[in-house]
Amino acid sequence: MHRPAFSVKITQMTELPQKKLLQEFEPIFYPKSIAVVGVSQNMLKPGSFWFKTIVDAGFDGNIYPVNPRGGEFLGFRVYRSLREIPEPVDYVIVSIPRESVPSLLDDCAANKVKAVHFFTAGFSELGDSSGHKLEEELVEKAREGGFRIIGPNCIGIYSPESKVPYGPGGKAGKVGSVGFISQSGGIGEKLIELGIARGINYSKGISFGNGIDLDSPDFMEYMAADPKISVIGAYLEGTRNGRRLFNTMKAIARVKPLIVWKAGRTDVGAAAAMSHTGSLASSPAFWSAALKQCGAIEVHGVEELADTLLIFQQLKHYKGSGNGVAVVGGMADGGGGISVSASDACAELGLNIPPLTTRTRQGLTNLLGQVGSILRNPVDVSQSGSNPSIIKEALKLIFADPSIDLAIIQIDTGVLLKYLPWEALQALNTVFTDLRSSQDKPIVIVSPPGVAEAERLEMEQALTQASIPVFPTMERAAKAIMNLSQYSHFQTTLGN
Amino acid sequence: MHRPAFSVKITQMTELPQKKLLQEFEPIFYPKSIAVVGVSQNMLKPGSFWFKTIVDAGFDGNIYPVNPRGGEFLGFRVYRSLREIPEPVDYVIVSIPRESVPSLLDDCAANKVKAVHFFTAGFSELGDSSGHKLEEELVEKAREGGFRIIGPNCIGIYSPESKVPYGPGGKAGKVGSVGFISQSGGIGEKLIELGIARGINYSKGISFGNGIDLDSPDFMEYMAADPKISVIGAYLEGTRNGRRLFNTMKAIARVKPLIVWKAGRTDVGAAAAMSHTGSLASSPAFWSAALKQCGAIEVHGVEELADTLLIFQQLKHYKGSGNGVAVVGGMADGGGGISVSASDACAELGLNIPPLTTRTRQGLTNLLGQVGSILRNPVDVSQSGSNPSIIKEALKLIFADPSIDLAIIQIDTGVLLKYLPWEALQALNTVFTDLRSSQDKPIVIVSPPGVAEAERLEMEQALTQASIPVFPTMERAAKAIMNLSQYSHFQTTLGN
Repeated sequence: MHRPAFSVKITQMTELPQKKLLQEFEPIFYPKSIAVVGVSQNMLKPGSFWFKTIVDAGFDGNIYPVNPRGGEFLGFRVYRSLREIPEPVDYVIVSIPRESVPSLLDDCAANKVKAVHFFTAGFSELGDSSGHKLEEELVEKAREGGFRIIGPNCIGIYSPESKVPYGPGGKAGKVGSVGFISQSGGIGEKLIELGIARGINYSKGISFGNGIDLDSPDFMEYMAADPKISVIGAYLEGTRNGRRLFNTMKAIARVKPLIVWKAGRTDVGAAAAMSHTGSLASSPAFWSAALKQCGAIEVHGVEELADTLLIFQQLKHYKGSGNGVAVVGGMADGGGGISVSASDACAELGLNIPPLTTRTRQGLTNLLGQVGSILRNPVDVSQSGSNPSIIKEALKLIFADPSIDLAIIQIDTGVLLKYLPWEALQALNTVFTDLRSSQDKPIVIVSPPGVAEAERLEMEQALTQASIPVFPTMERAAKAIMNLSQYSHFQTTLGN
Repeated sequence: MHRPAFSVKITQMTELPQKKLLQEFEPIFYPKSIAVVGVSQNMLKPGSFWFKTIVDAGFDGNIYPVNPRGGEFLGFRVYRSLREIPEPVDYVIVSIPRESVPSLLDDCAANKVKAVHFFTAGFSELGDSSGHKLEEELVEKAREGGFRIIGPNCIGIYSPESKVPYGPGGKAGKVGSVGFISQSGGIGEKLIELGIARGINYSKGISFGNGIDLDSPDFMEYMAADPKISVIGAYLEGTRNGRRLFNTMKAIARVKPLIVWKAGRTDVGAAAAMSHTGSLASSPAFWSAALKQCGAIEVHGVEELADTLLIFQQLKHYKGSGNGVAVVGGMADGGGGISVSASDACAELGLNIPPLTTRTRQGLTNLLGQVGSILRNPVDVSQSGSNPSIIKEALKLIFADPSIDLAIIQIDTGVLLKYLPWEALQALNTVFTDLRSSQDKPIVIVSPPGVAEAERLEMEQALTQASIPVFPTMERAAKAIMNLSQYSHFQTTLGN
């Protein structure tokens, strides 16, 4: 389903071929040197905390604290200005008041820095003309000085491979193949946090705030060209150049799955977006139509964005249409109500829950008996007596059914632990991970929160590591599968 | 908003006045004696496990194990038949094969039992005529014997006040004022589990399966009459008498909030409902229209049902229309993206997020400054420096605004713990619980899952105990508030 990351198609939308794109963004995502402007002895200041965070994460390039007062910080010499630093700096993090920003840009030019990231806020998002004017001045200085700007009003890069955490106090999670682009620093932070909690592993991410120079299309082009990234997630509030964003998304969605959450859809949301990143909004209907036309997958919240990135990461080789889904419940007690409500959730979201073939049903009846079980699809395996071998046999029968290409299995840790010892739950997990590796049809687990959270999270972690995506509700699992199959259908229309 | 539990209106729909209803159901929900038929020495059998569960829970009435082989079980004399038991039994739990059920009913009549609950399955849900015939036979015998039937194919009662847990292995949670009626045993179990996890405390609950004798309208009438219950939640798959159910719901919704989740809405869901409880489904549009006409609140899943029961329990004295909601975020880091997406979620679900008055905004600007904050509504308090006194002052200003009658506050434990020590989070919680008790406008907290689950759950528990409802997402909080305000509007149309 996924073609190799780079394709000739990407050159159709931009003058920059892949190699040049990768080179241009290398100092940003793989910096050899970082300067933090606005480090002081006060550890509560973001600049100081940020500097310490990068040092603690084990960043192995050169790192320079900058403050006009000089001195020492955490054993590092504090430079009075970027001009004093003995090498051109790849990536500069700026956390100083906005009034001091213009003169800093002259220092950047003098040092020949590659990219400047402004954590500093107080620009166009204030809604007055002075902010806009200051932004124009910044862009002009960057053009003259030959460097790029990220922000202002943002958290900048997340690059676990380079050991650069995301913002002050951040941690670098596991390195993976997911890329994210977020206009909001907080949403980027939440995506990373959900990644660590749920096993979504990022190659890199970026928060770009007001996006006055490098904007969402720039980062999309780069991530499309980057062979380390297999799926791109984006949180957007608006853009300065809608036509360019549209053309970029259209080109990129042909190369890699592009998942887009466009916020500021409602009037009150749009007003908040204006105050947040100075973004002017368009109507939600316009955005939905445009995203569909591009082949991008539209999502509607941070949970759905994370769910969709997770399923693309976990099931990246899945070529099924998602149109033949088996729903299995009742691992210990009666799975009847779950079967009924799961059917509703899946069917309402457009998934097809086909009846199993007579042969499969006969096999299940022989294995499980009939009384108290629902064996049509959804399948209620509660008559298995929670015996892992019987559950495994039942799942094998279901997977052998030609009308099924994916199974959603509901396990409720809190309920199961009422009836079974912890070892039995682990044996059940092993059934799923064995089946995941021994045959091609993917497994999706629904594991709802309840009274045994520690055990539930342990189960989830083991499943995630075995490439099984785990969701807290049937609705969210069904929506993620629909998003995956939407991409599969889109690829088919492209002849891929 | 909530009138006293009992009202003359309830007598308009039924021949039974309150006192008679309470008397009739007393042996079911407050049994003085319980017999479990189908107890054996094998602890894996549901009957044995169930018996032990009730004993372990500290049930203080008489409890009798029954098995034709007699003997002893856990130190109790095993009776060979109900006929041997020296007193009429209030509540009999039956867990034996369906073939043995008819003769058991003769024993019930001989003992003069009050109510029989059949865990035993294998009746109309099998979809063949023998199941229906057997059910008719059961109802006839019950009429002749003067006792009532619960089920078959269900888990029966949950009565924490009587120390009767719900099914084998169940625990009795805290006693509260919520009642539930569930056609599915598993959904009832999940409701109890979510109750223990999230602070929804039940007065009583019932799973009634195929409902061949006592059906959903009977339990609704009883719970409407029961002064201990303030809100009723129902999971329904179908009914044998639609007209009666409709009339009952219509009468009851005038007395107490009635929250209904009707499953089997889709074709595949309806087929599963047929196999599960032998229920014939009607179209979802019909159900939605009927529920609306009754004044019942329709929900669409176990999460929304639990969310709605929680908010009714926590905010039972809330009389606001829910039309002036303040959304507050950014307790530590930037709350910008959260503000934008929260605005979308609330506005799309119909909540009104009015702009704050000039006076309130001026107060907030004086308190927080402007740069980097959004102070229109949603309000981003990230410039408070996470100082609890400043956050408290900001919330007081917001609550003093005449256009606001409820505040949704977003706290993200995982993100907060990046910046703040645990004590600071507890101080923040204290700000919320203090404000909850010191003024009238309710607080709703959104606390999304992430990387610090143990701490998040501890925060949630403290908030719940202070009558603050907590939800995992903005969307779910907004939906629950909408459901609450729907009831408030309905009461207004009644002139209450």
